[in-house]
Amino acid sequence: MSAAPTSKGDSPGPRNVLGIDIGGTKMAVGVATPEGKLLASDRILTTVGEGPGAALGRLIDLCRRVIARSGEPVAVAGVGCVGPLDQKGGLVLSPVNLPGWDRVPLVQTIREALNAPVFLDNDANAAAMGEHRFGAGRGVANMIYLTISTGVGGGIIIDNHLYQGESGNAGEVGHMSVDFNGRPCGCGNIGCIEQYASGTAIVKRMREALEAPGGNKSVLRDLAADEITTKAVIDAAEAGDMTAKRVWDETILALGTALASFIHIFNPRRIVLGGGVTNAGEHLLGPLREATRKRTVRPMMDIVDIVQAELGHDVGIFGAIAVGLERDGRAEKL
Amino acid sequence: MSAAPTSKGDSPGPRNVLGIDIGGTKMAVGVATPEGKLLASDRILTTVGEGPGAALGRLIDLCRRVIARSGEPVAVAGVGCVGPLDQKGGLVLSPVNLPGWDRVPLVQTIREALNAPVFLDNDANAAAMGEHRFGAGRGVANMIYLTISTGVGGGIIIDNHLYQGESGNAGEVGHMSVDFNGRPCGCGNIGCIEQYASGTAIVKRMREALEAPGGNKSVLRDLAADEITTKAVIDAAEAGDMTAKRVWDETILALGTALASFIHIFNPRRIVLGGGVTNAGEHLLGPLREATRKRTVRPMMDIVDIVQAELGHDVGIFGAIAVGLERDGRAEKL
Repeated sequence: MSAAPTSKGDSPGPRNVLGIDIGGTKMAVGVATPEGKLLASDRILTTVGEGPGAALGRLIDLCRRVIARSGEPVAVAGVGCVGPLDQKGGLVLSPVNLPGWDRVPLVQTIREALNAPVFLDNDANAAAMGEHRFGAGRGVANMIYLTISTGVGGGIIIDNHLYQGESGNAGEVGHMSVDFNGRPCGCGNIGCIEQYASGTAIVKRMREALEAPGGNKSVLRDLAADEITTKAVIDAAEAGDMTAKRVWDETILALGTALASFIHIFNPRRIVLGGGVTNAGEHLLGPLREATRKRTVRPMMDIVDIVQAELGHDVGIFGAIAVGLERDGRAEKL
Repeated sequence: MSAAPTSKGDSPGPRNVLGIDIGGTKMAVGVATPEGKLLASDRILTTVGEGPGAALGRLIDLCRRVIARSGEPVAVAGVGCVGPLDQKGGLVLSPVNLPGWDRVPLVQTIREALNAPVFLDNDANAAAMGEHRFGAGRGVANMIYLTISTGVGGGIIIDNHLYQGESGNAGEVGHMSVDFNGRPCGCGNIGCIEQYASGTAIVKRMREALEAPGGNKSVLRDLAADEITTKAVIDAAEAGDMTAKRVWDETILALGTALASFIHIFNPRRIVLGGGVTNAGEHLLGPLREATRKRTVRPMMDIVDIVQAELGHDVGIFGAIAVGLERDGRAEKL
């Protein structure tokens, strides 16, 4: 109340938001308005070999440069990072993709360097919040987000907020089983949807199919191991290759069953699908909608859309920005 | 403010709650304080053959008698009824178990007869709310309730409230698939947990096992069809009958996988299991906890209890009372 009014008279101070996306390969940083207008962004390699101290030093330099380019200080920062995390403590807990990052005090380090409040969530939750606020989930109160990539992750939006569960770990949608006698998963469960629909799983199942009886008739049989990709499987299936078609059809069936189950449990308004495998676009979404429709109770199917994510490569930055906005309570005031 | 003070001086008028539980076999009615002290209750047969008009007439007479016995008028009524329902319109929409109840204006009829606000939800949601408020879920913010009976239903409590989804149909937990190549379900999905864990499914799978190779060695082979019950299967399995053991072990495995999936998705504090099949008590819960633990991510398993429901036969009445309290907003004031 005692502060001198600014030249604009009603300006309440900084309002822009910094988003920081930390992955095993790259770190991306962006500044946007609370409405999601991106003012500046940049990215650098993570270079995990050099350890967390050096990487965080370069990250903070990058943050300062991007903030300077945006032209204004930021009010808050959000961070999306590969997990596991200690979200309350603001720590990174030895992610597989960040070797050596053992109990790294990420939030404290960034907060002290930038002198702003900092909020942290895992990359999948951040992406769900980003798509909900700025992407394919805009205006929808109840939404499931799945990212189908090397693994399958996601997040659950309930009444416009990320559902976090009792201890902050909810939304491990990739570890719902679709076959209780099926493929073992690293999480301990059997038959997780991740073991059928992730890019890794599609390639693995295609390789197994090539070794199985009849596999030698596939057009993919002479490819080098690293040439067998999700795209190669889809292309071969569409060209009539029966082995690839069996693998792709099973993928659609498993994923459609999973979506039917999510719809029966959550009765959502929208399901948003992101991640590399969804680059297949309608080659995936068309048959997937059909498989889901066949297995879903009619009144719940009628009110749900199944759509592709919209933010593409920027989902990391926008997700982190959404984390900052939501946790700071700033979003409520918009 | 202008009303004359009562003898107690601070009495704000009626506060007791009427709960009405309508099933295909019986209708039960009870009056309780908002804290859950049951003051009076009674039940009558539904007698579906006589149609909804006569049944509702007898139900309203019963309500009046029970209210009179409780000694005070009621402030609000909650109704739990077998679905499908039009919850907003307060209508019953031709449930399988209430033949002839086609678009019956349940809420309006009761409201006009009793001159009190009336709120309606389906029996499974009501039971979830009842166990949460008055039973095994007391004090827990995030809870999954499953009722394992002739079917499998349930409800999801998030941040102390029933999660209803976009159009009021969320929580169909029995129609999550645990086998995407499995047993067809009436809902359209394949391999729903209801097809493995419901009492109906256990008996059906036992009968199939008796017909299959080796089934003639089972001690259950000479029973009449209606003597093959869930209890008979469990007793035979525990006595070492290999055919019954295979059926029961598969039940535990399918249900444990489903619970692991629910935990990964919801990260709940507690899972409450009700319904006739859970009368098996620790014969079910012991092996089920073990199967779930093997398939669940450790940090999420560590914070969840898997417990039996507490309200037993009264869950219908207490569930309906919880519906009345929650929808009326009265619960917030306690």
